[in-house]
Amino acid sequence: MLTTAYDSGATRRQPDQLAVEEPLTIRLDDQLVTTTMRTPGNDFELAAGFCFTEGLLGEATVRTCRYCATGAAVDTGFNVVSVDTGGVAPTPSPRLGLTSSSCGICGSASIDALAERLQPLTPGEPIPLDVLVAMPDRVRGDQGLFDATGAVHAAAAFDRSGDVIVVREDVGRHNAVDKVVGRLLLDGRLPASDLGLCVSGRASFELVQKAWAAGFSALVAVSAPTALAVDTATRAGLRLAGFVRGGRMNVYTPDT
Amino acid sequence: MLTTAYDSGATRRQPDQLAVEEPLTIRLDDQLVTTTMRTPGNDFELAAGFCFTEGLLGEATVRTCRYCATGAAVDTGFNVVSVDTGGVAPTPSPRLGLTSSSCGICGSASIDALAERLQPLTPGEPIPLDVLVAMPDRVRGDQGLFDATGAVHAAAAFDRSGDVIVVREDVGRHNAVDKVVGRLLLDGRLPASDLGLCVSGRASFELVQKAWAAGFSALVAVSAPTALAVDTATRAGLRLAGFVRGGRMNVYTPDT
Repeated sequence: MLTTAYDSGATRRQPDQLAVEEPLTIRLDDQLVTTTMRTPGNDFELAAGFCFTEGLLGEATVRTCRYCATGAAVDTGFNVVSVDTGGVAPTPSPRLGLTSSSCGICGSASIDALAERLQPLTPGEPIPLDVLVAMPDRVRGDQGLFDATGAVHAAAAFDRSGDVIVVREDVGRHNAVDKVVGRLLLDGRLPASDLGLCVSGRASFELVQKAWAAGFSALVAVSAPTALAVDTATRAGLRLAGFVRGGRMNVYTPDT
Repeated sequence: MLTTAYDSGATRRQPDQLAVEEPLTIRLDDQLVTTTMRTPGNDFELAAGFCFTEGLLGEATVRTCRYCATGAAVDTGFNVVSVDTGGVAPTPSPRLGLTSSSCGICGSASIDALAERLQPLTPGEPIPLDVLVAMPDRVRGDQGLFDATGAVHAAAAFDRSGDVIVVREDVGRHNAVDKVVGRLLLDGRLPASDLGLCVSGRASFELVQKAWAAGFSALVAVSAPTALAVDTATRAGLRLAGFVRGGRMNVYTPDT
């Protein structure tokens, strides 16, 4: 599109590329799960990854992903995806938006709820700090949509040597993570205990939850974590680094 | 807390302040509405603002806000807020997460749904461009929590002369907007047709929706808008500016 560029009182018309944001409805074994605003593309990864990281699959495995409108099993950009496990979807765990306790939940109860369905991560050989600190710059070269639009976040899985395994961009940072996790899930590469996860923004409770569910050993965030994210990473046994920029970072967990 | 600062291979322990992120459950006339991760504080504004911007109030007005645990009508940091209109809450409009159409929704249908409940904004005298372009720097001085933690977004309402009316910070950018709108609502200052809204991040569909619902005449975003945000602002008659930094900005709507 053409937009009006304003600079010190003067205006001129210039071309501008905008990031696409469209709703995707996700169904699991014929039950409506959610609708999320996302950047179209890699929708099957997003749908499968969301179901997995939110704990909706239980012990089931994903057999097929398809667009409901056409039944197409190729990823072509419609707006309802059905994830099928071949069975009846387990009753979704209580999660944000569905809770009904009259006394509400607090942050520590949110962590407790995660700990009920997720095992603490198995401590393996940690990914070296010099690998973690270098990841945002390595991923940056693959953020083509961000370069064009400035409106999308990125998430990437990387290995112990710092090689990038998969990068995804999306207007929703949680969607970018779900697409990465979904790709690994569909490739049979979960739990990702030998991998780290790099995100282009902040580290919230939600992102730590998703990293924990996928079994990553480390989460690297370009920006700041929240207190609840640090507490959750501590419980998970997940190494969490924030403010990872220009060769510097803060390591929040483990705290020794 | 103490964190480990890593710089070029060396580490040292240093103090660090983290943003608080805790769940808040919102009830409207005794019906559960949602649970959102937010920065505690101004919870009544958040609850009232959310109900308003999401179209849950209909024609009703907010009579009281209170914490469910104690019945306290002062804002003291519990985690369930009940908004009461004195009646029975209207059936919530279909919205993201609640839609059940088997063919899904697309972006333009999402805009149509908004247009059904929201009137186009009344074009008044527009806020001057030189006021819009200066707002992020003006608001920046009031972002104390961001300065301390780097982990929160800000939203602010401002008037035609560029004076900041209210600023709120939150880990969720949508929450920061809802707190601003909630403050204006509780003060009887809506619709905000003489005011603009400034946000510290990107402009998504969701934020344009909230700005439209509150009746702002302009939305100023420090970062990029999405294509759907621009389309929605066009339908609303809302002036939308993005990439507002250092005396420069892009004006996306109106497109002439």
